[in-house]
Formats: sequence, structure tokens, C-alpha cells
Amino acid sequence: VNGSRLSGQVRIVGAGLLGASVGLALRAKGVDVIVDDSSPAALGLAIDYGAGRAPSQADDPHLVVVAVPPDVTAEVVRAELAAHPHALVTDVASVKAAPLTALRSAGADLARYIGSHPLAGRERGGAISARADLFLGRPWVITTTDANTAAQLGVIEDLALDLGAVPVGMAAEDHDRSVALVSHVPQVIATLLAKRLVDGNHAALGLAGQGLRDTTRIAASDPSLWIQILSANSAAVVDVLRSFRGDLDALVTVLEDPAVPGARRALAESLAAGNVGVSRIPGKHGQDRRFSQIVVMVDDRPGELGRLLSEMGEVGVNMEDLRLEHSPGAPIGLAEISVLPEAEDHLITELEARGWRIAEAWR
Amino acid sequence: VNGSRLSGQVRIVGAGLLGASVGLALRAKGVDVIVDDSSPAALGLAIDYGAGRAPSQADDPHLVVVAVPPDVTAEVVRAELAAHPHALVTDVASVKAAPLTALRSAGADLARYIGSHPLAGRERGGAISARADLFLGRPWVITTTDANTAAQLGVIEDLALDLGAVPVGMAAEDHDRSVALVSHVPQVIATLLAKRLVDGNHAALGLAGQGLRDTTRIAASDPSLWIQILSANSAAVVDVLRSFRGDLDALVTVLEDPAVPGARRALAESLAAGNVGVSRIPGKHGQDRRFSQIVVMVDDRPGELGRLLSEMGEVGVNMEDLRLEHSPGAPIGLAEISVLPEAEDHLITELEARGWRIAEAWR
Repeated sequence: VNGSRLSGQVRIVGAGLLGASVGLALRAKGVDVIVDDSSPAALGLAIDYGAGRAPSQADDPHLVVVAVPPDVTAEVVRAELAAHPHALVTDVASVKAAPLTALRSAGADLARYIGSHPLAGRERGGAISARADLFLGRPWVITTTDANTAAQLGVIEDLALDLGAVPVGMAAEDHDRSVALVSHVPQVIATLLAKRLVDGNHAALGLAGQGLRDTTRIAASDPSLWIQILSANSAAVVDVLRSFRGDLDALVTVLEDPAVPGARRALAESLAAGNVGVSRIPGKHGQDRRFSQIVVMVDDRPGELGRLLSEMGEVGVNMEDLRLEHSPGAPIGLAEISVLPEAEDHLITELEARGWRIAEAWR
Repeated sequence: VNGSRLSGQVRIVGAGLLGASVGLALRAKGVDVIVDDSSPAALGLAIDYGAGRAPSQADDPHLVVVAVPPDVTAEVVRAELAAHPHALVTDVASVKAAPLTALRSAGADLARYIGSHPLAGRERGGAISARADLFLGRPWVITTTDANTAAQLGVIEDLALDLGAVPVGMAAEDHDRSVALVSHVPQVIATLLAKRLVDGNHAALGLAGQGLRDTTRIAASDPSLWIQILSANSAAVVDVLRSFRGDLDALVTVLEDPAVPGARRALAESLAAGNVGVSRIPGKHGQDRRFSQIVVMVDDRPGELGRLLSEMGEVGVNMEDLRLEHSPGAPIGLAEISVLPEAEDHLITELEARGWRIAEAWR
């Protein structure tokens, strides 16, 4: 057990993916975690799995973490503020302005509330996917107001740090505009793109490649959660969607007659702007240009990929990244391995000596 | 050298990514490959790298593969038909109706032309990325017309099979509608989504996760190529974009007032349709439900991932898939490993015995 930054009891309300993951992680740090849920079955499951202990009359939490669906967040926060008059209360909802407005209207004690939002969603929702490392290395947005003290902010920062997350301070409105751009609108667009496939014929879908898979992957997300998120952040989402629609309209006009003077220039400018936009996303994105890529052909037989990885370990080359490409029905898969450029020749030589086929490439 | 299905000389016109990759692969099968390019520098490079030999007066190709940019494809096919009156000519352009129409208008000998399109694009264009295995396991669309014989179709099928591709017969118009849906429109949408990031502030982009990366990845594609593709297939692309825009308009209207009766139902139906659409894409997509996923925490230190893979090999468990998740600035990465459900417990036990931290999960 590593020591925690947080002290005192932590009460978690809502035993879903996020609440149970917070519980698992804090328990692992030795924190006294109380978990509660309006569903006795969900609560019992969370306790069985080690996310915390059941509530009792003697509870005196220092911190309450509300991890319920977005559309009931404000009401549950208000009730927790009233029930625990000495506790600081936070929530983990993925919209921040709407709950704050609702709490203000309800006359809640905003001096003891600080909103937060861990950017740690997964396609698979539900407590069944909870894990202690869910927040590791992810941004944890903290939306303080003028009513809060630095000491209170420190408590929420400690919570984030205990979970391995990176605290990021932001006003509620800025947060909502930001996630509209980088999360909610991409969800809407992926959904609308995937919707086009509903009527696509089988032969057309057979031509799908990695591009279609990537652009539509998040369209598999849980509708019930996204109804709430999109409803609660609709104004910011609509702002971005309107700009998107303006660009789309312009592009459709260009494509309706691509032979007119200026059409190709307009197309070029859109495509170049897309290049610029994608380059602004921090972190790994597609091919990391600092590394060399080696592509190894792997027969689609049990154990072949394991053998490759085992033998790569023997060779002693550090693999920086690995990406598997495998088309349905193909007798072979491709393992694209990223290594430091200076290790490339050594790795190719050693793998070929062990009988692996390296895809021919020009570099 | 494995034997080839093709016999006789194969002449490749255009020494870019596709042409050079065809050349490398056919050479490896022992085929006599002639490579030609309007740029002497590009031609010299392709020959140096083994994609084929230089043209000579004595050449008598049985098959000509035109692998030039889409907007000059028809003109080059016409010239090759005229220059080699005994050869069958094919091309590899990613649009098929426009070149056919242009050839028909030009009075070309359509009895000796069969269009094809290998679905094997990559973000990185140019001959520098050519490789012999580029077409392995990928669909190779063949668009015959009434003017062609079964024997001619067989030659193009042999070409596809020699390259490890899967021949798929399709009318030119069906092909163009299909790739508009599964490739061209996703490109346009990813571009427009990425364009929204150009003005996004730094703090907002810092909240980006894998969803944004995946939905925008192909927006990094080469504008000059896509100008040609979108121009040549504009009618089919506009058809799909108009339907997309209709759905988008409806969703914007819903989000402008998400509190009105029926709004949530409309949102739910869009999101559910997205779920259905994405489930129609064949092959691997996201989590493969046949396998169990184990998440191993890997310190961001050189050699750690290599050590994990080496030790997985020692354990003797077949890994079906591997996905790395690594957030910028995080001290740790997550390796999500797919294995057969019956191997899961054994693998967890063995990895934990070797000191690996398995992310806690509820299953």
C-alpha cells in the first residue's frame, strides 16, 4: 500500500465505471472509501469487488465524489452537500456549466462544491469495466469558482494525483467549449458517418479499410450516456457543428462542379487545413516521425505473433510502438514496429536470421 | 523465387508508391518487369531499388499497368493502348467511371482495357514508401466491361493473385459509389473535423483523447492526391455528403433545443444508428468480443515493453492482438492484450509472478 495524499473518509456516490474505478484506486492507496448507490444490486457488486465499504450512520466523509449520470449530477450533489455539512463535494460529470447553474438556482452551498472531469472515458461503460488505473496519466479538469478556497482546490488536486491523473484548472464554460471541440463533436460526426453505413451494401462495406474503421470507431459508444452529454452541452456543441456545417456546405458546392475555376484551389485549402488541424493534436498521432518503422509479416497461425514478440525480446531492441494490421480473410498479418533509427538495421538483420520476412521498403 | 501466375513481360508506367510496389512484388516472383516514368529521376530511383528494368526498343509487354495520378490516367492508358497494340492494359486509379468515360470519348480500344483498383492506400505517399507486400490480403477491384473476354479478366486476376491481393469484380459505377461511401466521404469528414482544430486553443487540445486522434488521423493525407480523387468521383461523393448533411441538419435542430418533447428520442435514434453502422464494417473493429482483454501497466522506460513481450513469449500464451495506449507526459503506458478466454487466468498468474502489474478489472 502506497500512502495517499488525501486524508479522512472519502464517500463515492454512484458505483458505475468512474465511481468504482475511483474507489478501487483509493482503496489501493489505503484510503477509507465508502461507496453508495441508489441501486442495492450495483452497490453490493461494487463492495464485493473491493471498491469500498457500505455506508454507516457513523460516516463523516471529508470528501464526497459524485459519480452519477450527468442528468442527475446536480441533484445528487445538492443532496450530498445537505447531508454532509462538513464535506467538500465534487463530481466527475463530463459537462460542467449545467450542473453549476442548476446548483446555483437550487441555492446549494457552492462554497463546498468544486466540479471536476477526468478525461478517461472508454467505449465500454458500466461498473464491469472499472479499473484502478483508469485515470493514469489522463487530464483531470478542476473547475473552481470564486466561492472556493485554495485549500479546497488542494483537496481535489490530491484526489487527482492519488489516482495518477494530471490536474488541469479551467473555468466551467471553457471546459465545456473545449470538450465540445475535442470530444463531443467528434462523437457526433463519427455517429453521423457510421449512420451512412446502415444502408451501404455488403460489397461496398467489403472495401472498407483502416481509415473507415478509425473514423467511425467511437460511433460504437453507449447512446444513453451520450444523449445526456450532448443535451447538457448542446449550446457549445451546436456552435462547433454550425462551423462544421458551413465548411461542409462550401465543400459540397465545390464538389457539385469541380471543373469551375477556383474549385481545385478551394479543395486544396480545405485539405491543407485538415493537415494543419491534425498536426495540432498533442502526443502520438499516426506515425511518429522520430522512429523508424519495420514491417514484419506474420502468418495467421496461433503462436506466430507471440513467437515474433519473444524473439524481438531476445534481440534486445527496444520497441517504441507496435501496430498490427490484419485484413479479414488474409492469410497473413503485418506487425509494424517502431524503433529508434539506429536500431533498425540490427533488428532487420537479426529477425531475418531467425526466418522472419521483413516487408520490403524504400527508406 | 516463387513462380508467378502471370507470364510474359509486364510494363509498369508510373514509378510512384503503387507502381513501384507492383514492380517489387512481381520481380520477387520472377516476372520480367519493365518500369517507365515521365520523370527520369523517379525512373532511375525505381530501377535502383529493384522495381524493374528500363524500357527498350525490343519490349513486347503482355500486360501494361498504368499507375499514374488519377487525373492523367485516361490519357496514359490511351497512349499505352496505342503504343502496344497486342498488350492488355489496366490501371490502378482509385476512381473507375471517369477514366472509362474519357477513354470511350477518345475512341480508345476498350477491348484491351480493364480497370482495376487495389484498396491499399497509405497516408504516406510516394515511391519512398513502396513495398512488395503493399497489396497483401487487400481487395483488388476489377471493373470489366462487355468488351472484355474471360481470358483477359483472368490475366488481371492473376496480377492481383501474384501480388497477394483478393480479386473482387464490380461495375465501374458500383465501385465509385462504394469507395465514395467507405473511403472518400470518410476522408472529407475527417478533413472537415480536423479543420475545426485549426483555431482551437491550446488548453482545449490538451484534453484530446484517442477518440479525436482516431477520427482525424486520415486528415493528414496528401492534399494533391485527394484533390484528384474527390474531383474525379465528385458526383458519388456529393450524394453521400448530402445525406450526411441532412442528418447533420436534423441533429443540429435537435440540439438547438434538447428540452422539447421528442428531442431525446431523436438523439437516441441517431446514436443507435451509429452503433448499427459501425457494426456493419467487416473484420476487426475495436474490441473483439471473442477474446479476453488483459491490461498490463508498462513503465515508460526503454526496454520495458520489449521485456513484457519477451516474457509473454516465455509464458507460452498466444496473443491474438495488442494495443498500446500511451498519453503524452504519462509515466506509464498500458498494453491491452487480447487472448483466448481460457488462457486469461494463466497469463495473469504468470505475469504477476514476474512482477508485472495487471490493471484491476471486473469481468
